[in-house]
Amino acid sequence: MLIKPGELLGTISSPKDLKKLKQDQLVQLTQELRQYIIDSVSVYGGHFGASLGVIELTVALHYVFNTPVDQLVWDVGHQAYGHKILTGRREGFHTNRLYGGLSGFPKRSESIYDTFGVGHSSTSISAGLGMAQASTYLKHTEKNHIAVIGDGAMTGGLAFEAMNHAGVSNCNLLIVLNDNCMSIDPNVGALKNYLTDITTSKTYNKVKDELWHALGKLSAFGSSAREVVSNVENGIKSVLLKQSNLFESLNLRYFGPVDGHDVDHLVHVFRDLQSIPGPKILHCITVKGKGFPEAEKNQTKWHAPGKFDKVTGEIHKKVHETPQPPKYQQVFGHTMVELAEKNPKIMGITPAMPSGSSLNIMMEAMPDRALDVGIAEQHAVTYSAGLATQGIIPFCNIYSTFMQRAFDQVIHDVCIQNLPVNFCLDRAGFAGADGPTHHGAYDLAYMRCLPNMIVSAPMNESELRNLMYTAQLPRKEKAFTIRYPRGQGVMPDWRTPMKEIGIGTGRMILDGEDLAILTIGHIGNYAVKACQMLQEHNLYPAHFDMRFVKPLDQQLLHNIFSRFSKVLTVEDGCLQGGFGSAIIEFMSDHGYQAAVKRLGIPDRVVEHGQQIELQQECGFDPDSIAEEAMSMMVDYPAESIS
Amino acid sequence: MLIKPGELLGTISSPKDLKKLKQDQLVQLTQELRQYIIDSVSVYGGHFGASLGVIELTVALHYVFNTPVDQLVWDVGHQAYGHKILTGRREGFHTNRLYGGLSGFPKRSESIYDTFGVGHSSTSISAGLGMAQASTYLKHTEKNHIAVIGDGAMTGGLAFEAMNHAGVSNCNLLIVLNDNCMSIDPNVGALKNYLTDITTSKTYNKVKDELWHALGKLSAFGSSAREVVSNVENGIKSVLLKQSNLFESLNLRYFGPVDGHDVDHLVHVFRDLQSIPGPKILHCITVKGKGFPEAEKNQTKWHAPGKFDKVTGEIHKKVHETPQPPKYQQVFGHTMVELAEKNPKIMGITPAMPSGSSLNIMMEAMPDRALDVGIAEQHAVTYSAGLATQGIIPFCNIYSTFMQRAFDQVIHDVCIQNLPVNFCLDRAGFAGADGPTHHGAYDLAYMRCLPNMIVSAPMNESELRNLMYTAQLPRKEKAFTIRYPRGQGVMPDWRTPMKEIGIGTGRMILDGEDLAILTIGHIGNYAVKACQMLQEHNLYPAHFDMRFVKPLDQQLLHNIFSRFSKVLTVEDGCLQGGFGSAIIEFMSDHGYQAAVKRLGIPDRVVEHGQQIELQQECGFDPDSIAEEAMSMMVDYPAESIS
Repeated sequence: MLIKPGELLGTISSPKDLKKLKQDQLVQLTQELRQYIIDSVSVYGGHFGASLGVIELTVALHYVFNTPVDQLVWDVGHQAYGHKILTGRREGFHTNRLYGGLSGFPKRSESIYDTFGVGHSSTSISAGLGMAQASTYLKHTEKNHIAVIGDGAMTGGLAFEAMNHAGVSNCNLLIVLNDNCMSIDPNVGALKNYLTDITTSKTYNKVKDELWHALGKLSAFGSSAREVVSNVENGIKSVLLKQSNLFESLNLRYFGPVDGHDVDHLVHVFRDLQSIPGPKILHCITVKGKGFPEAEKNQTKWHAPGKFDKVTGEIHKKVHETPQPPKYQQVFGHTMVELAEKNPKIMGITPAMPSGSSLNIMMEAMPDRALDVGIAEQHAVTYSAGLATQGIIPFCNIYSTFMQRAFDQVIHDVCIQNLPVNFCLDRAGFAGADGPTHHGAYDLAYMRCLPNMIVSAPMNESELRNLMYTAQLPRKEKAFTIRYPRGQGVMPDWRTPMKEIGIGTGRMILDGEDLAILTIGHIGNYAVKACQMLQEHNLYPAHFDMRFVKPLDQQLLHNIFSRFSKVLTVEDGCLQGGFGSAIIEFMSDHGYQAAVKRLGIPDRVVEHGQQIELQQECGFDPDSIAEEAMSMMVDYPAESIS
Repeated sequence: MLIKPGELLGTISSPKDLKKLKQDQLVQLTQELRQYIIDSVSVYGGHFGASLGVIELTVALHYVFNTPVDQLVWDVGHQAYGHKILTGRREGFHTNRLYGGLSGFPKRSESIYDTFGVGHSSTSISAGLGMAQASTYLKHTEKNHIAVIGDGAMTGGLAFEAMNHAGVSNCNLLIVLNDNCMSIDPNVGALKNYLTDITTSKTYNKVKDELWHALGKLSAFGSSAREVVSNVENGIKSVLLKQSNLFESLNLRYFGPVDGHDVDHLVHVFRDLQSIPGPKILHCITVKGKGFPEAEKNQTKWHAPGKFDKVTGEIHKKVHETPQPPKYQQVFGHTMVELAEKNPKIMGITPAMPSGSSLNIMMEAMPDRALDVGIAEQHAVTYSAGLATQGIIPFCNIYSTFMQRAFDQVIHDVCIQNLPVNFCLDRAGFAGADGPTHHGAYDLAYMRCLPNMIVSAPMNESELRNLMYTAQLPRKEKAFTIRYPRGQGVMPDWRTPMKEIGIGTGRMILDGEDLAILTIGHIGNYAVKACQMLQEHNLYPAHFDMRFVKPLDQQLLHNIFSRFSKVLTVEDGCLQGGFGSAIIEFMSDHGYQAAVKRLGIPDRVVEHGQQIELQQECGFDPDSIAEEAMSMMVDYPAESIS
């Protein structure tokens, strides 16, 4: 189904066309653009609320600024649908987030208008400042550099580091603060309160106005009063204008707040700001989901609603005839509550992903024991380490890809101190439609190289519960990582009784004789299917779910390498330094000489698509596993190996 | 030489003893403590200026607060010498930073008073908040939690993330901002200017006072004026008191600034603050190196001066009779200038380590092309990525251990986008006396698992120059990492002409027949020595300097594994997933079956000591390498392997 653009939008293939419009046509264009996104996402799915919230900003920015010469950097990037549609990608927009189609995020290789690839938050000011610094040095003084960043992303430490630097640069950088009081879940933290505060009339602005007004009145009291007033006024000016604002404290000229849905006013403001050199910030107030009432009302639900009825606002849900396995996320969320009810030392921490991780289940049930610290992965980890020093058992749930942000904190604050902190890495392996910025591809490699670190992955719901149960048992040392993928497990009846799993023990799923298949985590279910296929071809593989990448089950591995001369390892992580690499380290260290084939994520950037599509591409879906096993039988006939 | 403590200090074995002193004795104690540190460091070396700057703070904190029940968290930790001396470690203080001796940083396993191990910056607020949250939950309401953090560390994003969270918590957390306008090198960034601003009389405080004063006068103008004044005053109060301060913007109650060298006043202030619940910040102004005039004058030089004459202030320098090889750091610094003179696209970036990395050489020579972004590793990397998008060739120099902080930025902003950014990782391998928080142990493992990443390490000065030369040649893609250790290379005549090195090419250092020794980086020089020893025992190893961990020199490796059945790999990095692991991945992937022994950093936390001491402990000093080679000859006699 092709989405038909409105009359004006249909004429726009690039910002050049946009600039041909008269300013009084922009309101109509924003309506058409908003409708186009509603039409598209309702049919094809994708992120929703964020893009609706920046329609006017998007139009005004491309209308005023000379993109792509001027460098427009979107933070996080899921709000860039309008930007994509205006910059030559309307026709292809129906392929958004599909395998081989457009990326759901800005991406340098996709368009010259996408100046900086993104997906994680809080990068835009740093990147924009780097661009601006380069332009200054290269004497491209005509260039503008604009970073559009949400209030949620502002809490990420990287944004603060960049503002601290921007404030002492004389670079031509405009930060557009898109303040909607939401990232995915409602924002938390003092900054949010502060922004609300300077936005609402009771404080900053009203006070500023009132003061000026009051001082004007005072001047009527004669010359001596005027002198005093003048002193006061100077004082107030210096304090109010120079320091009364967090951003001006950092030497960024602050403008606003302005209505981020008044495209006409935004055009005026951007034109004015163009002529003001140096680093500056424009505070825009927007509404996430603007223009689609359901999305305005329930912003978390409508962050990425899936397909929906654009008239009734009903979100289409798949109806299944048979009971479905739950998502690993749900298992995590409910199991947290179950464990915490029995163990008063457990606390749950998430950096800004309460609904994504399902920690919100515990946050509702036990509000004093589960919390969202905002987009602040580094803090989430060090804070958890602080909790652990006092005997608390923290479960810090961070998406695998976002844990990259807290790598030093894991090393410096947890592993070196040998503190018993539990990490649940969600969305490990391929993230799916979110693509390369969100794939949890490296966690097995970057975690297993650390001392005092246990690295595990459950093959199913019951295993996840058992690993979580094990992780909360009294333990004086070692961090404990449990990583699992986005999406469904395999057990419709998942509320199994929990039991302890020996740390560093694997298990045999299937005994066999021709070769050994070693898997880690959920991907083991693919091996189960592969084994069934192989058996149909009269091949009898053994299958071991290793459960732990670290420590490895040495006894089991001695057994495996003593019995099998062919070993196939399968992981949904990078092949360099990952699970398979750990297995061949073991093999080499102990002098075994099996033929080993490792399947997993290859050494390149894998793009977006459904998880299974990407796994097929990379050759570790069930069929590929079976094929590899068969070709190993051909390549390494039994007699050639001692 | 045993350092004699002063009369009062000699009586103090723990803060209990300190609390027995009368308040009017504290000044004397601070003098004695200061002298003790001067005496000790002058003889034994170590960090210096930072601890002198917090003598009064240290004494006042332990005098007022109930440590170790109250949790005192030092940020960075090199300022904690006074703390160590007062908490039972005076007698052992002469072993500070020596192998087997006291750590130069707080360390949980060393003392119950060391609540949180540290070495990297900006962790204390997160950790302290975690502790405070735990105390709140556990109803230990009597506990205080104090984070002492420098102004430099405040620029690290982690500190901001933590403040943002602290501001909405009701935890009993006191942040002591130790503002000395210096970390190691002078601070940079807008925050520094801001802190200076609110400290100097011209602005914040004076204005606040003046306003109150002026408003008092205005009240004399009668009742209608009084009403206006009242309005104005309320407005000013709400703005000034609530929002006029960056920290109060984040809902932290701000106190100060106070003189951080007035121990008597500090005791009063801390007593007052004890009774104020919730998160709060005390701004203390201190002088780094306080009390030792030379150190006050040149704070960077006296950050960690080595041994010195405490009377004349002369720093003892080793005098060498023969020309010495330069430090890798110096080679980096001078080579940057040399390359940048010819290639106008080169820029240099350091996060707060200009003197440590020697980028200061370029910063002096080319101030518009080399810059310090402050303690902000994440920003340094994303900023470099921004530069690269505009055609600049950035050399971003970050200590290996600090690069852990920017891991996500390397992945998300550089590798996924395939941007040609150059990373120079300083202090790779064992950092030496700084210990485990500073060892650059994991970089080979965490870098080589990333796509679009070149990972190299030079064996000597000339190789470093050639790698840097290669990295600045026009290149459209791929990040390029060059990692090298702290300290001297091996070439007194190091200014060799530069030439391109083929990316992914290794070199043969010595041909042989009995086994192949494969090394990466400077540690290759140990293998050279080991080979000499082996030859004396009639063993003839071949030695290959692989130069690149990624991409590996496939041709060379095919050659090696075709010729040799015994391979010894040596690296000064972690064995899990590191260089040796890459070698056996190659071996396994290509069906070779050599006996491989991997030497490197084992899977545990290695403590502090001289680099060679730690290498001996871990078994990869020259003697150990030779011994391992010999034992391989015994364990795997030639005939047993096909």
